[in-house]
Amino acid sequence: MKNFAGTPGTLTGLILRIAQVMFAAGSIASMATTSSFFNFTAFCYLIASMGLQVIWSLGLALLDTYALATKRLLHNPILVSLFVIGDWVTATLSLAAASASAGITILYFHDLGGCTARMECQKYEISVAFAFLSWLTVFISSLIMFWLLAAG
Amino acid sequence: MKNFAGTPGTLTGLILRIAQVMFAAGSIASMATTSSFFNFTAFCYLIASMGLQVIWSLGLALLDTYALATKRLLHNPILVSLFVIGDWVTATLSLAAASASAGITILYFHDLGGCTARMECQKYEISVAFAFLSWLTVFISSLIMFWLLAAG
Repeated sequence: MKNFAGTPGTLTGLILRIAQVMFAAGSIASMATTSSFFNFTAFCYLIASMGLQVIWSLGLALLDTYALATKRLLHNPILVSLFVIGDWVTATLSLAAASASAGITILYFHDLGGCTARMECQKYEISVAFAFLSWLTVFISSLIMFWLLAAG
Repeated sequence: MKNFAGTPGTLTGLILRIAQVMFAAGSIASMATTSSFFNFTAFCYLIASMGLQVIWSLGLALLDTYALATKRLLHNPILVSLFVIGDWVTATLSLAAASASAGITILYFHDLGGCTARMECQKYEISVAFAFLSWLTVFISSLIMFWLLAAG
């Protein structure tokens, strides 16, 4: 298997994973500190999805760190297949959660004529923005993994 | 480039494209016949996104039909790159639109204690279901295209 930027066990791969963890954790932190997120199914789903993202990306970040420290290559086809499936599942869930939350945020901000609780609404917006950033970084990772698997 | 099920210019590829057009058109039809979709940004976005899906998939279905009729293979790398980009963009937009609409539908049905207009709500649900089915078929197409491009 070829070795290019973003593949498992490279520094760029590790940076991508750390970015995913940071954005997902930021999204959870911003959402979980609001007082009414549990009234909205989509916001609860966002927290669950971002939580899964943090666990998955953190696991792979640790694996990348180990690979970098021991100078091992993680380009085993079975391992890469596993990464591809995990990345695709988390990317799809993240996009769905971010979009569902964005739909509700736009509904409250725009369609229903503004949000009343100023501080809460800003937190919802920040959380959705972080969720989209998290999805973007996982999406890049998943494309790289899929390319690595397909190119052999 | 290899020739496997679902690649451009094959019968399975054509069937996938027709399914995408049918599901997306069904979603638009169900949503556009409600009387209040224009009050919701997410529902308008769903119609726009499904409209784009119909145009894109219909174009490729016609191209597949032409390729099948003239027994030509459409496995030119530049052409496949174009298909990959188009499929990925429409798949991402479709999932985002379907999720945003699903978020709002769940908000009205579940979080806010049931939907008052019975007929309208069923139409929203059917539209969202069709949108997800449309996304699923485009997603399969986009994976096949990406694999075809990467495997060379």
